[in-house]
Amino acid sequence: MTQPALPDSDAPGQAGPHPFDAAIRLSPLGGGRFAGRTSDAYRNMVGPYGGITAAVMLQALLRRPERLGDPVALTVNYAGPVRDGEFEIATREIRTSRSTQHWFAELVQGPEREVSTTATAVFGTRRETWAHVEAMPPALPPRESLVPSRGTSVAPWSARYERRTLDDLDAGEARSWLADVPPRPIDFPGLASLCDAFRPWLFARRPQRTPIGTVTMNVYFHAAADELAAIGATPLQGVARTNAIHRGFFDQEAQLWTPDGRLLATTQQVVWFKE
Amino acid sequence: MTQPALPDSDAPGQAGPHPFDAAIRLSPLGGGRFAGRTSDAYRNMVGPYGGITAAVMLQALLRRPERLGDPVALTVNYAGPVRDGEFEIATREIRTSRSTQHWFAELVQGPEREVSTTATAVFGTRRETWAHVEAMPPALPPRESLVPSRGTSVAPWSARYERRTLDDLDAGEARSWLADVPPRPIDFPGLASLCDAFRPWLFARRPQRTPIGTVTMNVYFHAAADELAAIGATPLQGVARTNAIHRGFFDQEAQLWTPDGRLLATTQQVVWFKE
Repeated sequence: MTQPALPDSDAPGQAGPHPFDAAIRLSPLGGGRFAGRTSDAYRNMVGPYGGITAAVMLQALLRRPERLGDPVALTVNYAGPVRDGEFEIATREIRTSRSTQHWFAELVQGPEREVSTTATAVFGTRRETWAHVEAMPPALPPRESLVPSRGTSVAPWSARYERRTLDDLDAGEARSWLADVPPRPIDFPGLASLCDAFRPWLFARRPQRTPIGTVTMNVYFHAAADELAAIGATPLQGVARTNAIHRGFFDQEAQLWTPDGRLLATTQQVVWFKE
Repeated sequence: MTQPALPDSDAPGQAGPHPFDAAIRLSPLGGGRFAGRTSDAYRNMVGPYGGITAAVMLQALLRRPERLGDPVALTVNYAGPVRDGEFEIATREIRTSRSTQHWFAELVQGPEREVSTTATAVFGTRRETWAHVEAMPPALPPRESLVPSRGTSVAPWSARYERRTLDDLDAGEARSWLADVPPRPIDFPGLASLCDAFRPWLFARRPQRTPIGTVTMNVYFHAAADELAAIGATPLQGVARTNAIHRGFFDQEAQLWTPDGRLLATTQQVVWFKE
């Protein structure tokens, strides 16, 4: 597919690795443990952007040589803030059967090895079967016809995604064109991170400043590694909706599609908010 | 609300506890560990019905005296079969903040303490905030106008739920009236279990015998304990849909509503299937 023309004004030079790959870089420590470091490029207001944390948790599992097949499901629990600097991810193989493999991972920091994030994941061997997509791709106008959302300097990660969003208040959903800045071929960590890039629907429904924080995020992958590899760096389409905003928490669910109508991932999260 | 008139032909006598409460009964062993036993009433073809396993994992966390507030999110990973008989659930408090608390739990069996099931959960303190429900309740005809699904003796759990379902192939969704048999006031474990009671959409779309198994299930609760307690044992309404059936796995997502239009839970799962 065509390489998208994306703004690269604040993109790093093309000489080094993509900032996403730098952010999820891990050094094996043995015993299923990996060392990493938070990335300035994906910082949020407090600590890292949740999507990059999801991506690096998944990356640790992808680095395990025992890994069977492709990620099918990932749940990331944001138990406390990740502090800027070094961290360790400890991974544990729970159980492996012929067609699935279950994992647990936790991100720890400091001499007390405080846990800030946990994750569970299911990997599976993908094979050709009868297939049927029930969901419908989002109805989106051409990408160029939508204005990119402005990033904010207090959340540097927002400059790492180009987001062109149409808030449809009548339909109760936000439809978006989404792309890495600079462009990057899509893969499983990239998809996991993108699942957290949707603007919380609360802000569309009630436009006022509200402190929020994701407490858990779930990602189901609907494509195998070979299918993702064939897609490349094209901008993707997304649609996000919230079911309920209720007593201090709201949910958000979203889908990610290729422009030619292949469903790549569905995702859900629960967000805490302060009234 | 009115106590529903449900068939109780194969319901146990009213003298003992409800079979659901017997199935999730746990004895504390100290150190966050609990002993339980699988229930014949909720057996599936191989091992327990996935919903009852989700319920007992949640019940272990609800029994922890350190527990803060109400369950907000629960992820249950079905890593391997639960064998009939005794089991132990080990729970671990991951981290507690002012408004949320994160947990990990695993179900182990046998002298080798083999893990068959893991779970993560987020609990939260519920407080009055601005609230808004975006989702729409399912369009269901009166309960009596739909025929109850027939249970099957090879899956005894199916007799523990009355399910009256309308498969809407055009809309790509199944809408149901759902109730415990015998009736039981809804609570968090009851809701978690009910989230697994939907007939897999694969069977509506492709009516042929297919071996399947849930590999992971996610539940988001949209009601607090006091709100659930006010509902009682009324039949609930559900709507379920699948986004994608693809290369050996499919997802399923569903909502559970009260008949007067309150959203209680949203749920998602990934199911392995054999072509």
